[in-house]
Amino acid sequence: MGSKYTKRSEDYSKWYNELIERADLAEHSEVRGCMVIKPYGYAIWEKMKEILDQKFKETGHSNAYFPLFIPKSYLNKEAKHVEGFAKECAVVTHHRLKNDEDGNIIVDPEAKLEEELIVRPTSETIIWNSFKSWVQSYRDLPLKINQWANVVRWEMRTRMFLRTTEFLWQEGHTAHKDRPEAIEEAELMLKVYADFAENYMAMPVVQGLKTESERFAGADETYCIEAMMQDGKALQAGTSHFLGQNFAKAFDVKFADKEGKLEYVWATSWGVSTRLIGGLIMTHSDDEGLVLPPKLAPIQVAIVPIYKNEEQLSAITEKVDVLVSALKSKGISVKFDDDDNRRPGWKFAEYEAKGVPVRVAIGPRDLENNKAEVARRDTREKSIIDWLGIEDYIEKLLVEIQDSLYKIALNRQKENTTTVDSYEEFKTVIQEKGGFVSAHWDGTAETENKIKEETKATIRCIPLDVKEDSGKCIYSGNPSKYRVLFAKAY
Amino acid sequence: MGSKYTKRSEDYSKWYNELIERADLAEHSEVRGCMVIKPYGYAIWEKMKEILDQKFKETGHSNAYFPLFIPKSYLNKEAKHVEGFAKECAVVTHHRLKNDEDGNIIVDPEAKLEEELIVRPTSETIIWNSFKSWVQSYRDLPLKINQWANVVRWEMRTRMFLRTTEFLWQEGHTAHKDRPEAIEEAELMLKVYADFAENYMAMPVVQGLKTESERFAGADETYCIEAMMQDGKALQAGTSHFLGQNFAKAFDVKFADKEGKLEYVWATSWGVSTRLIGGLIMTHSDDEGLVLPPKLAPIQVAIVPIYKNEEQLSAITEKVDVLVSALKSKGISVKFDDDDNRRPGWKFAEYEAKGVPVRVAIGPRDLENNKAEVARRDTREKSIIDWLGIEDYIEKLLVEIQDSLYKIALNRQKENTTTVDSYEEFKTVIQEKGGFVSAHWDGTAETENKIKEETKATIRCIPLDVKEDSGKCIYSGNPSKYRVLFAKAY
Repeated sequence: MGSKYTKRSEDYSKWYNELIERADLAEHSEVRGCMVIKPYGYAIWEKMKEILDQKFKETGHSNAYFPLFIPKSYLNKEAKHVEGFAKECAVVTHHRLKNDEDGNIIVDPEAKLEEELIVRPTSETIIWNSFKSWVQSYRDLPLKINQWANVVRWEMRTRMFLRTTEFLWQEGHTAHKDRPEAIEEAELMLKVYADFAENYMAMPVVQGLKTESERFAGADETYCIEAMMQDGKALQAGTSHFLGQNFAKAFDVKFADKEGKLEYVWATSWGVSTRLIGGLIMTHSDDEGLVLPPKLAPIQVAIVPIYKNEEQLSAITEKVDVLVSALKSKGISVKFDDDDNRRPGWKFAEYEAKGVPVRVAIGPRDLENNKAEVARRDTREKSIIDWLGIEDYIEKLLVEIQDSLYKIALNRQKENTTTVDSYEEFKTVIQEKGGFVSAHWDGTAETENKIKEETKATIRCIPLDVKEDSGKCIYSGNPSKYRVLFAKAY
Repeated sequence: MGSKYTKRSEDYSKWYNELIERADLAEHSEVRGCMVIKPYGYAIWEKMKEILDQKFKETGHSNAYFPLFIPKSYLNKEAKHVEGFAKECAVVTHHRLKNDEDGNIIVDPEAKLEEELIVRPTSETIIWNSFKSWVQSYRDLPLKINQWANVVRWEMRTRMFLRTTEFLWQEGHTAHKDRPEAIEEAELMLKVYADFAENYMAMPVVQGLKTESERFAGADETYCIEAMMQDGKALQAGTSHFLGQNFAKAFDVKFADKEGKLEYVWATSWGVSTRLIGGLIMTHSDDEGLVLPPKLAPIQVAIVPIYKNEEQLSAITEKVDVLVSALKSKGISVKFDDDDNRRPGWKFAEYEAKGVPVRVAIGPRDLENNKAEVARRDTREKSIIDWLGIEDYIEKLLVEIQDSLYKIALNRQKENTTTVDSYEEFKTVIQEKGGFVSAHWDGTAETENKIKEETKATIRCIPLDVKEDSGKCIYSGNPSKYRVLFAKAY
């Protein structure tokens, strides 16, 4: 039976878009570049939020909420920041509509704002304006704040989850007494992100530092986690910035140290967004649809009854109810789908498309034999399992699926990371094989830009675990101290 | 010792503003009418969200997320809705800034949007535009969606938590096969709100229907919960709307029923916001600061050690650690405050200002006697309690505080609800005693407006439990079928 859907191998980009529709994750809205996150997609985001939020709290952060609007003048205060963020953004200029003479709704020209407001593309400026009054003394430090919010960047080319005009994210903003403490914080939050990516999303990442030209606008150093998608392209999955004293100076945030001396504070900011859902899709999914790691699956187990009459259904239901309770008491989320309007085959296809990790099917013969069919979504293997102890089997299977997804992704990352020593080789690998390419670079923005222009590959990061290894830049032939990671990226 | 703070009895409004600062809940931002919700205020909102979200899910709703921006033309589609919401709002007209010749940042005139975007004041229009493709058949119904989001209404007079330009809220949006099912939903969600207000916020409410002129723009019927604040003014704390087929017709949302006939769907929407925090403050707090019902307190128990040296502190700590574990295992949130920089008296004042329900103090003499001092925030009573079993004592005390706060608020509501039968009496009560006034009304908007103009009192609601009781309108003398509830309101 031919599928009406595009195969991953045929057209990765089309496959991705169709998958989002098929798994009912999101859809385009009529507002340019903005998407609607549908209930199933949002349920995945809720799981991500819940886990991350707990990790932020465990590491001493508190949530707060700052205004959506940023006065235009704020953006101007930090020189590099304005370069990066004051370009493509949504600008509020008026605060009223009115009816014109023909009864049409128009913007009321009398309601022009004295100072335009920018819909936040990120909140450093508005938050540091508050920090000014929050920080007086060393006793107020460290100040560790996080915000869950929507932000807007007027993107020209958008793609669902990966790059949208409006997106949901969290942004951490912290203030510290000295440089080492701020760097420690930026590195700690990078570790939190890497742990989340690897142990929950089952998505291996390379931790590294951005080059100067790829840094966050206003940062002294940008740490990142970079993941490899199934098509060999890189995805920047999260960033953590050491901001030095740049925002403290721009917003005049000083503290009195123990000796009473006034010093500027040191800062970090860090964020991940709904982009992670795009990464999740492109790490595990296949031609049948979404594949979800169990730890992020809104439904971990779907149970489908197979029956011909009410009597059979009621015998199955009686038995399944016990299993549902047993699974729930293990903290496993389970759905017993006894909807009479959809046939089992439809249900199977739907749960496959939605990436539900484990599916249990039980019919009259299974009842007789005291067994059930258990199918795992990742490998699509089916097994006939004894009913007695099936809840333990499922519990272990979920752990196995989580581990297996990570291992497969890690193998792919390893197999598609190539070390090269010449520019010819570099170009061939980037164009034909794809993936990460580890190569020597002379450390200049000029070389970086040339390589980008000629190959579309960018430096994803200088890996944190890089080894000193003197060599020659593949492009300029000039001396290089270590290898960096190149790739084409989303 | 005189307090530097304004007393509740002196100036209620000033007391309210000072309390928000004192309890560290929120602060004004420099963006007109927008506030910053500080960590402690946000922690209360998080508790509210968590409880409400669970109730929404238990009643079959799923969360989703829709765009922040609404094309101007959408607002025009529902005739009454546009009247109510297309007036004072934030209008995005441009999507780019640029540097002018002097290096100043200005709005790029070339980046004018073809159609202006409105920052959502509420999301009916953008959501119903999606529902059009989500609903095809009776099998897609009921469709029960909720969104947690920020919204913007360009208010002229703002007040922290009660009325701000931007605020946080949830908005439920549902579609149903027929009128009775939609009405049942609107009433169910009103019950959810009333249950939350009374059993979590300890804030008694009157459930009722709004008059036509107080209805949500686009609703056939607006249900509400009305609470009475300490100063006798009413606060609309939540609304649930039966929208009839108005939005279905405006956005052409039809479904095929079991016979294949196309019908417009029936709708509801319902919301509560960060305004609830204002209601919480004005229901329980006093001259010492915030008073929180235990079920919404981010910290339920604060433990303060009293010591003169390290040895004493370590003996206390050893003992307290056991209590902290015992309380945590009961699901009670507890903070052991061994910060050496602040003296016990300061800590006591701080936890009082922040409304922490129970404070435990333990010093060397308590250690010897195997006792501790337990203070409850609501009555400010202190008791010396045996250490053995103190965790059970505290657990019961938290329940008692929750109940007591509700009873006191309920008594106040009863004592300040007055039944009147003449307009003279009505005016006297509204001006002198305040509170709710139950009176006959002829059912016309004309009378309602006259009374509002002359006394500033509005009809808060027609209570759901109103009894048929024919009488004469206090204003016009015309026949009336039942009494309605008037009050001055926030």
